[in-house]
Amino acid sequence: MTHPFRADGSLRHLITLEGLPRPIIERLLDQAQSLVRPLGERPPVSDLLAGCTVANLFTEPSTRTRVSFELAAKRLGADVVNLEVQLSSRVKGESMLDTVYTLESLHVDALVIRDAETGVPGTVAAHVAPHVSILSAGESHVAHPTQGLLDALTVRQHKPRFEALSIAIVGDIRHSRVARSAFHVFRTLGVPDLRIVAPPALMPEPTEFSGCARHTTLEAGVRDADVVMMLRIQKERMAEVELPDADRYYASYGLTPERLALARPDAIVMHPQPMNRGIEIASEVADGPRSVIRDQVRNGVAVRMAVLREVLAWRGAP
Amino acid sequence: MTHPFRADGSLRHLITLEGLPRPIIERLLDQAQSLVRPLGERPPVSDLLAGCTVANLFTEPSTRTRVSFELAAKRLGADVVNLEVQLSSRVKGESMLDTVYTLESLHVDALVIRDAETGVPGTVAAHVAPHVSILSAGESHVAHPTQGLLDALTVRQHKPRFEALSIAIVGDIRHSRVARSAFHVFRTLGVPDLRIVAPPALMPEPTEFSGCARHTTLEAGVRDADVVMMLRIQKERMAEVELPDADRYYASYGLTPERLALARPDAIVMHPQPMNRGIEIASEVADGPRSVIRDQVRNGVAVRMAVLREVLAWRGAP
Amino acid sequence: MTHPFRADGSLRHLITLEGLPRPIIERLLDQAQSLVRPLGERPPVSDLLAGCTVANLFTEPSTRTRVSFELAAKRLGADVVNLEVQLSSRVKGESMLDTVYTLESLHVDALVIRDAETGVPGTVAAHVAPHVSILSAGESHVAHPTQGLLDALTVRQHKPRFEALSIAIVGDIRHSRVARSAFHVFRTLGVPDLRIVAPPALMPEPTEFSGCARHTTLEAGVRDADVVMMLRIQKERMAEVELPDADRYYASYGLTPERLALARPDAIVMHPQPMNRGIEIASEVADGPRSVIRDQVRNGVAVRMAVLREVLAWRGAP
Repeated sequence: MTHPFRADGSLRHLITLEGLPRPIIERLLDQAQSLVRPLGERPPVSDLLAGCTVANLFTEPSTRTRVSFELAAKRLGADVVNLEVQLSSRVKGESMLDTVYTLESLHVDALVIRDAETGVPGTVAAHVAPHVSILSAGESHVAHPTQGLLDALTVRQHKPRFEALSIAIVGDIRHSRVARSAFHVFRTLGVPDLRIVAPPALMPEPTEFSGCARHTTLEAGVRDADVVMMLRIQKERMAEVELPDADRYYASYGLTPERLALARPDAIVMHPQPMNRGIEIASEVADGPRSVIRDQVRNGVAVRMAVLREVLAWRGAP
Repeated sequence: MTHPFRADGSLRHLITLEGLPRPIIERLLDQAQSLVRPLGERPPVSDLLAGCTVANLFTEPSTRTRVSFELAAKRLGADVVNLEVQLSSRVKGESMLDTVYTLESLHVDALVIRDAETGVPGTVAAHVAPHVSILSAGESHVAHPTQGLLDALTVRQHKPRFEALSIAIVGDIRHSRVARSAFHVFRTLGVPDLRIVAPPALMPEPTEFSGCARHTTLEAGVRDADVVMMLRIQKERMAEVELPDADRYYASYGLTPERLALARPDAIVMHPQPMNRGIEIASEVADGPRSVIRDQVRNGVAVRMAVLREVLAWRGAP
Repeated sequence: MTHPFRADGSLRHLITLEGLPRPIIERLLDQAQSLVRPLGERPPVSDLLAGCTVANLFTEPSTRTRVSFELAAKRLGADVVNLEVQLSSRVKGESMLDTVYTLESLHVDALVIRDAETGVPGTVAAHVAPHVSILSAGESHVAHPTQGLLDALTVRQHKPRFEALSIAIVGDIRHSRVARSAFHVFRTLGVPDLRIVAPPALMPEPTEFSGCARHTTLEAGVRDADVVMMLRIQKERMAEVELPDADRYYASYGLTPERLALARPDAIVMHPQPMNRGIEIASEVADGPRSVIRDQVRNGVAVRMAVLREVLAWRGAP
């Protein structure tokens, strides 16, 4: 995929991190970092995007990501409208593109799209008017680019030398957009040792995640890692891997304090949430001193502010 | 129906276009036109209605109309709250009027009401406190006044001399609030040749649409028309007209390029959306050079801004 | 329960009115009173809370209370996000606390929580970061503190000497959070004659509502009362009290003009809404000259503004 830019050099859409040039990624991370505040301080607010309109178009429920985008937009002064499409126009059979053309004609400047179907954000981006930006908020198992950026920002805050890192991504890699966006961003940022850890049935095709070491046991996968990224497991997947209940899955693939002890002493633990405590991660680990899971959430709103600024600031003041 | 005005001559409610005096309609169209911007430019924003509160009270889902009203209000600086009443207070059996009195007591200034039942906006308007305005966003099969105004504005942008026009409204006239509001506004604006085109079972009662020519074939109905307004057909209606599936309905009543060729060479094509592509309209026509369907959406937010200004501006600055 | 205060003496959370010191209650009522405007005038607006974020976290539907909090926050300049948790993250099994930690990490300053389960607001308050405030918007049958405050404000507007009042609370006391918060606030404000009126099966345990007179007939309960507070009855409760339909319940416990005539001639009638007209209250009474039910709604938004100011103003200007 080629990434489209505007005449002033700014990125137009954010659909995937695959192929996004490293300088753009670093610019977004730098901008996001400048917007991070410690918990308890107020987040930065501005009216940079006053007069702009951002529409959240979610066809899967996701309170966390929707609220994160909504607050990012509001704190930059934009107007926000929320649409849950499966509850409204789709019940009348309206096509996604007609909904998009409608929003475009209502002078919406950016569409934030979450959809369970592959290809939706890209299709919309290919058809939308030139002034409109498309931001993916999660596309099937394919991409979740703002999640990848917030993961990279979180790692950078603790381990600034990407070139020296071992990162293990653990869980249902096969069906995970979070894993794919992490793979792309860490690859581009030069992480030399990137590992995927999963039961065999949840490993991706051999053509994917090229260059990553593959481990089918958690113990081997996390050994001496600097970063352990846990993924959420869906219940229906446990049966597929012959670990048919939560206890058995946890026995084999749950991140316990004992297993975390195999990683580097200063390793950090990440999770995109929502967590299944006691299934893929022990509560002691999730809430422990090496967890940066809440930092990820805080970084998420900063990343989304940076992305909105990147794609909308060309409009200038109203 | 008599239309109530405030002491300064401004309209108080907008429930129907029936009987609305021509000077008021023209004032609203002029104001709306001044708020129209080309696609890609920013819409006008102001704080004229800062301190005012608009509540969207939708008892039928309608993403498009709700978002259009929401953006219109926000771009004028008003606060907006959305209520989906069937999902909340009505499940406890609360009556519509008690909901309305509650909103009134919360200092809501305008209530935008969409309801499947006949008479709801009028009943509410009859009971609400003197400072509150009621705007219908679609009332059963009876009226959809902002849709009628945006349709008139769209026609005027392309065919400014209403006195010279032939307009054909095509589809399920019998059950259509869009058709009724179009009939009222075009009648008042002096359109001499107004036609309704429908299968016999979807024709309205003979007492309605007085003065309109009635056609039961699309070919006869669109001949030499300046404007072709297509309506959405509901699946359950196709069976009623013995065209029990989409293909058969399309064969008889779909607007194809061939049928459109029977209209004037510069005829425009309209549709209130959401469209059933391949059922009442061919995609080639919907997306073709004579389609003004997206202009209708853009005009819709301008019309709603004009209406909100009309009914709320008497409050002056806060 | 002890009520936590910040270093500047302001209240941090509002979970219950039980044990809340009288000077704090009076300060909140005074502040709320200063924000009350007559119906038809504009409510006060400010940017005191600009840069603050309020999240409405409702796990039970409640349009009225949610909109009241939403408008209170917006009129003080705060950003507001609405979450209906049962429709989104909870469907994935996410725990309430992880949702709360997420909101905290998104720099949400106040969480407004409505939940059907006992203990949720208190549990959240016990775990949340020090800068975050928790406001209960209704907790099971236990507490509804902003309702209690608005009820007290409404009484004070008509009967300023609490020390001289007879107040009767009528209906399903056993299951009512409204009754409990009313009991706590009126007890603290020194109301000497506080009565509860209910069918025997809907009376609370003897250990609760200490010091209140208990009446099982409406006639005895309202005699010479200054204030009659009616509660909403749920249909499933009528069967429990062997008054299995609306008519029979109304015959025994409906507030009719005749029964209201037993109270003081200047008695006021209150109801938290939504009302079952013709079941617990006659429409003539609900809409009659002694009803202050709509004042309660208007006072509700003023009370919520006062509470938000109380718990968030320590942040000062952004």
